[in-house]
Amino acid sequence: MIKDMTQFYSKNALNMKRSEIRELLKVTRRPEIISFAGGLPGPETFPVKELEDISSQVLREKGGLALQYGPTEGELPFREEIAKWLGREKAGIKPENILVTAGSQQGLDIIAKVFLDPKDIVILESPSYIGGLQAFAAYRAKMIGVPQDMDGMRTDLLETVLEKLAKKKKKPKFIYVVPDFQNPSGMTMSLERRKKFLKLAYEYEVPLIEDSPYRDLRYAGEPVPPIYGLDTEDQVMVLGTFSKILCPGLRLAWIMAPTAWMDRLVVAKQSMDLCSPTYTQLMVSEYMKRGFLSKQIEIIRKAYGKKLKVMLEALEKYMPKGVEWSKPEGGLFLWVQLPKKMSANELFPKAIENNVAYVVGSAFHCDGKGQNTMRLNFSFSTEQQIDEGIKRLARMIKENM
Amino acid sequence: MIKDMTQFYSKNALNMKRSEIRELLKVTRRPEIISFAGGLPGPETFPVKELEDISSQVLREKGGLALQYGPTEGELPFREEIAKWLGREKAGIKPENILVTAGSQQGLDIIAKVFLDPKDIVILESPSYIGGLQAFAAYRAKMIGVPQDMDGMRTDLLETVLEKLAKKKKKPKFIYVVPDFQNPSGMTMSLERRKKFLKLAYEYEVPLIEDSPYRDLRYAGEPVPPIYGLDTEDQVMVLGTFSKILCPGLRLAWIMAPTAWMDRLVVAKQSMDLCSPTYTQLMVSEYMKRGFLSKQIEIIRKAYGKKLKVMLEALEKYMPKGVEWSKPEGGLFLWVQLPKKMSANELFPKAIENNVAYVVGSAFHCDGKGQNTMRLNFSFSTEQQIDEGIKRLARMIKENM
Repeated sequence: MIKDMTQFYSKNALNMKRSEIRELLKVTRRPEIISFAGGLPGPETFPVKELEDISSQVLREKGGLALQYGPTEGELPFREEIAKWLGREKAGIKPENILVTAGSQQGLDIIAKVFLDPKDIVILESPSYIGGLQAFAAYRAKMIGVPQDMDGMRTDLLETVLEKLAKKKKKPKFIYVVPDFQNPSGMTMSLERRKKFLKLAYEYEVPLIEDSPYRDLRYAGEPVPPIYGLDTEDQVMVLGTFSKILCPGLRLAWIMAPTAWMDRLVVAKQSMDLCSPTYTQLMVSEYMKRGFLSKQIEIIRKAYGKKLKVMLEALEKYMPKGVEWSKPEGGLFLWVQLPKKMSANELFPKAIENNVAYVVGSAFHCDGKGQNTMRLNFSFSTEQQIDEGIKRLARMIKENM
Repeated sequence: MIKDMTQFYSKNALNMKRSEIRELLKVTRRPEIISFAGGLPGPETFPVKELEDISSQVLREKGGLALQYGPTEGELPFREEIAKWLGREKAGIKPENILVTAGSQQGLDIIAKVFLDPKDIVILESPSYIGGLQAFAAYRAKMIGVPQDMDGMRTDLLETVLEKLAKKKKKPKFIYVVPDFQNPSGMTMSLERRKKFLKLAYEYEVPLIEDSPYRDLRYAGEPVPPIYGLDTEDQVMVLGTFSKILCPGLRLAWIMAPTAWMDRLVVAKQSMDLCSPTYTQLMVSEYMKRGFLSKQIEIIRKAYGKKLKVMLEALEKYMPKGVEWSKPEGGLFLWVQLPKKMSANELFPKAIENNVAYVVGSAFHCDGKGQNTMRLNFSFSTEQQIDEGIKRLARMIKENM
């Protein structure tokens, strides 16, 4: 028996950390816990009946194709539907710009694999999406977090970072942002910032990655155009997913990339899984063809919009002075700031004792900051649970003040 | 617009090559071509009706669960079924030893990510599975091919390689083999070789990877125990898949690994796709619970066994002297050796002109060897096509002698 396996592991593997959230989810699966921790959609929104009907049809009519290997890029009818879907916000998107992936996490992994060598620089929002941090960390990238405010990433601070790097003759491999209802903060980047953001990317010649899982889940306010919609230089790669607008259990998502960038992405995916499942691709393709997706999004918007309202009202009602929170207009998450001296990390075991869970904000920082912050998810719990959970959380926070 | 994207790509990405086979498959999808090129299962074997029935049941009874995120390791009931399935050949396999993957290609990618730094040494059969070569090459591993004969990898030559490396204080990260009905050669490693193979792995302390997609597809002769069944030192990691014993379009497979190795594999998968699709995991889990898998394998065995017979008879009937081929007792592939001076690569465009396709043997070599060899798949085409395709191939080869 080999005693020390570490001699066999890659430097990347030795450097990998378990996702705090994924580990947490195990605890929070206990039924007595009200969980604001995961990023789980509300299962009551899943279109089970429609998918059952379509799954039968796909197998009955196209079984031989559906159960066979398919092209690495994804099934053409599926890529056509996705291109058409994205065409709502920008003209000229072709199926050739779409690569089907196993959730956006695979998209992040593919991009990391194609772009990142150890020590390469990635710029992202601080805080940022934990799955992005994890994917880039797995390739030992150096991450630079740029603070955000209510209007998204601070482009003035981004400019300073880019300037400093340029002076040192260094260039980031890409800038990664979640501009709509960001995970974890719930913030949306303003139009002005998006324009400035693109201008800086052009000026410093840096590729952009727009991770956009929540864009269609707006419950209030006016939509801001997506960054790729404003892009005139073919410099933006977009991550989109069915996980939040349909359901996550099919693991279907896509990368939309400029034509010139597709080749490396496809070749990388070949070595990673040959292809995505044909069966479920054909299912969702049929689902879209029938025009179900827009209706489904309406259902989700209504449900989550209501839940968000309930959570905001509960926060207002129960939270003591000194606690602040973001007021997102969409998405799945709220961001809570405790008084500066209070630690959400230290509070966490007590929360579990009180049968309520959240994710500590520090998990979303590439630099360990944000100790006094927490992320709350409002899509998974019922309205009653949201009210009760926030009450418990507020009581605990008061006790610790 | 960024003109030179290569400045942004990782060293690994710049080094990646398109899979010749995956590219080929696009050509060979043309309906007039008889294709022995892909590794596609015969779609006539797919249990469409059973899967339709089960897909409905899963959505009806467990829709909320099936369409939701799941654990990275895979759904527990599914891992239990897989552990039970593998328990036929070795006692003590637990669900904790199973990691569900998106096809064995993801398994290979996970292993490569966890084990390989650039220039790390991997030992494998020559020729070897192209997906393995591609996965390892994507991390810039140094691959050493050990020739095989009718009894599988030449363990005497393996010993020489290990000895030489040890003298240079070098250790391979692992040895990768496909011991049953190997892809591409169709060879099966003999019992004696398996024992010697394990002995060498213990002596030189090298982890083993047993890639075993075809093991259950034996049409003649007596089974040889799997390497993991003979392993007493917990030193073998196994790749198994539903692609060849059920269907590939669900992209479901597994890694079975010693308990101590699981942690790094799971953490790596977290950053790669969060989890595999819950929906199809529950489907196949139910499929196995109903006892359908053994029956399905019987159906496949009968169908492919017949096809193999037809191909062997056609080769015997049509091929000119000087052409040799392997006579596998299972699996999906035959290996053809043309006369030494003839190049399967040069012959290929003519084959396509004649509407018949194969894969050039050199694609399976890490060192460009095997120019006079080709791999023929016999699972995908109908019996009539097999006879006609081999006739065309033989005519072409004769004309080029």
